[in-house]
Amino acid sequence: MLHRVRPTPEERSKLAEAANEVLSNIEKLARSRGLACQPMLVGSASRSTWLAGDHDLDIFLAIPEEADLSEALALAREVAPVHEEKYAEHAYVHAKINGFEADLVPCYLLENATRIRSAVDRTPFHTQYVFGRIKGLEDEVLLLKQFMKGVGVYGSELKLCGFSGYLAELLVLRYGSFLTVLESASSWRPGEIIDLEAHATISHEDPLVVVDPVDPSRNVAAALSVDRMFQFAAAARCFLCNPSIEFFFPQGPDPISDHDLSKQIRERGSTFLLLDFEAPLMVEDVIFPQLRKAEESIHALFQRHGFSVLRSDVDCHVIGETSRARMLFELDVGELPAIIKRQGPPVWETEHLTRFLSSHPEPSSGPYIAKGRAIVEVQRKYTSGIDLLEKELLTLSLGKHLTMQVQKGHNIYVGSELAQVKDKGFRSFMARYLAAKLWMC
Amino acid sequence: MLHRVRPTPEERSKLAEAANEVLSNIEKLARSRGLACQPMLVGSASRSTWLAGDHDLDIFLAIPEEADLSEALALAREVAPVHEEKYAEHAYVHAKINGFEADLVPCYLLENATRIRSAVDRTPFHTQYVFGRIKGLEDEVLLLKQFMKGVGVYGSELKLCGFSGYLAELLVLRYGSFLTVLESASSWRPGEIIDLEAHATISHEDPLVVVDPVDPSRNVAAALSVDRMFQFAAAARCFLCNPSIEFFFPQGPDPISDHDLSKQIRERGSTFLLLDFEAPLMVEDVIFPQLRKAEESIHALFQRHGFSVLRSDVDCHVIGETSRARMLFELDVGELPAIIKRQGPPVWETEHLTRFLSSHPEPSSGPYIAKGRAIVEVQRKYTSGIDLLEKELLTLSLGKHLTMQVQKGHNIYVGSELAQVKDKGFRSFMARYLAAKLWMC
Repeated sequence: MLHRVRPTPEERSKLAEAANEVLSNIEKLARSRGLACQPMLVGSASRSTWLAGDHDLDIFLAIPEEADLSEALALAREVAPVHEEKYAEHAYVHAKINGFEADLVPCYLLENATRIRSAVDRTPFHTQYVFGRIKGLEDEVLLLKQFMKGVGVYGSELKLCGFSGYLAELLVLRYGSFLTVLESASSWRPGEIIDLEAHATISHEDPLVVVDPVDPSRNVAAALSVDRMFQFAAAARCFLCNPSIEFFFPQGPDPISDHDLSKQIRERGSTFLLLDFEAPLMVEDVIFPQLRKAEESIHALFQRHGFSVLRSDVDCHVIGETSRARMLFELDVGELPAIIKRQGPPVWETEHLTRFLSSHPEPSSGPYIAKGRAIVEVQRKYTSGIDLLEKELLTLSLGKHLTMQVQKGHNIYVGSELAQVKDKGFRSFMARYLAAKLWMC
Repeated sequence: MLHRVRPTPEERSKLAEAANEVLSNIEKLARSRGLACQPMLVGSASRSTWLAGDHDLDIFLAIPEEADLSEALALAREVAPVHEEKYAEHAYVHAKINGFEADLVPCYLLENATRIRSAVDRTPFHTQYVFGRIKGLEDEVLLLKQFMKGVGVYGSELKLCGFSGYLAELLVLRYGSFLTVLESASSWRPGEIIDLEAHATISHEDPLVVVDPVDPSRNVAAALSVDRMFQFAAAARCFLCNPSIEFFFPQGPDPISDHDLSKQIRERGSTFLLLDFEAPLMVEDVIFPQLRKAEESIHALFQRHGFSVLRSDVDCHVIGETSRARMLFELDVGELPAIIKRQGPPVWETEHLTRFLSSHPEPSSGPYIAKGRAIVEVQRKYTSGIDLLEKELLTLSLGKHLTMQVQKGHNIYVGSELAQVKDKGFRSFMARYLAAKLWMC
């Protein structure tokens, strides 16, 4: 098992070589420019806790507080002439270097982690904290990360609202091993608190609180949702009862075929609506929270108009040159009656009643009284869920980036029309959606 | 206006004549049988507060407490050889006498109204109380009764959950006139208390409490629903703003035509289900409360299975030789998806969770987690509202009488099939249902 997650000696030396080359290039260039820039390898690559097959290099370009981040950014551009510029809290450079996906991220060099100017400034402190303590536990971290990955709670932290690598490392430091992490997680309840340095300064409302050893006011697990936390806990319980390699390397459902997709949509008898548009050029950790907020807005739109949403989900992945965002809504029913009840005030509240009645001068039925309240039945604005989505989509606040993309162009697929969307990413997404099976016992 | 509600001198003398004849026949017969039976005219006929055109005679046969009601019943049968036997709390005789609908009701002769054995024993005391006080106010009572009739809150008290004649009389005694009753009612709120004799002994939860002047523990308005109470109050406000003869003699909607019925059902876009069966042989005041309880049971059935009821109503009327009961249910949608979500316990309640998961061994989708709870999606038992009603109707507790009638035979009409039901009573009922307009401003 471990041989599948532990990088080989060759992988390790290749990574060390690539990292050292970039680091020394940056150093040389900085010196020649007279810039006080200290490059550092951070993240899992810096502490031998990266999973075999992951080829990520996180290299930070730390500059003094009084310097300007744009100088470090210029340096990064020069070191990796062929690159892509990305943007999270601020700009950074992404490049392919010797087969590795390298992020070159400008940050400030600070005395301690409580005075950071942006989230990346904290990373060097994390590296430092873990580096000194994780020796001998690297394999435990690797097992835990792969387990989390396998059960679907690890990876891009904000995309999934899941566990970050740093969080996994802290759990191993706290409990001592992969298995003891699983045993402890089995009996987690919301409100679990882990404070390695016993230095918490404020309390958090989050379901899991892991006080950052380098910043007493910060919860490392702030992004973790209650659902992901207990997806992990449930999987841990299952694994301990019935251990299997499947947990680490599950056989995800195959992309669903045209035939099966149409059949399942028909058999469920619900109404599927798929909104499809070109995703904005942003990292997953930025796009997914935006997609999820937009999902909530649309969900609320449906509810406001009386359409009950059975389930919904969002997805985003690369197809050839571009990236498509998908928002899926499954309605219990797609068509509602033409009339809708409007409930007025208690009939003895005479002033309210007068206002209510004069705002519905010609109801389809009523006014009548039910349980002491005035009721009228009026024409429903939208009897069709599809109509509603088409007409009201752009009146919603979907966030600036998504609104722009949706305005540029979008498709709405309904019911069996979903089978017109052919890309594998979508078909895997639909296979997962339809099964919706999050754990195995 | 009054001339339409006040009985003519001819009507009055005809009624007096008919009443006297029956009363003296009973007296004679009782004497010849050696039975101590005191016949008495009760109800509105006894105090000149009956509405023109009403031809009801309520004659009570009061016997001493130690006697047996069956002797009085035998007497009634003999006095009106052609009769029908009816049953409320106990048996009585209904007959047509000189063009009047006469009820001959056995009761006990008691010293005061607090020691009654059944509800009818109280009636002579009501007659006595009102008779001595209503002199000079008869026209006010007539106006109030006709107004209540016109706005749909007066008549068979339990059928409508509305106002009884005695209640109308007490309101006139309390407020002094028709108009002052309306003025007071305009500002009623739930919890209104009227206690003419200031002798209430217990408190009531009802929206209107009118303490019975002859029985301090009884609320005369106990059967009045909050909806009927405020239907009257709202109509009173409207009338005072904008008085019109229409309130007394409204033009009810005409029975709806085949074409309009089909059209309106189609345009509303909802799903109409009509349950039709032969009504049991009982008076309206007994049937309607049973129909309304059955309506609630069926309503709850729909809710339990996820079908939202937009509105429902019941009706019962004579068609030729028999009487049909109708229960109408209007569903928002008649068809639901094949799958339904089942929400389990919070995922950290591990024992509950295990039970939940093992009771859903092969869900259509899931288990997954939403807001900390385990969810599975399983096959819905009924996807069709019609199916549900057909299959589950006889498993409900509809009350003994209705269950028997439904078992004997029933029809279920769906959507435009309702137009197959042709009788006028039903078409008037549907016209009222579809308009559902309870007051005019």
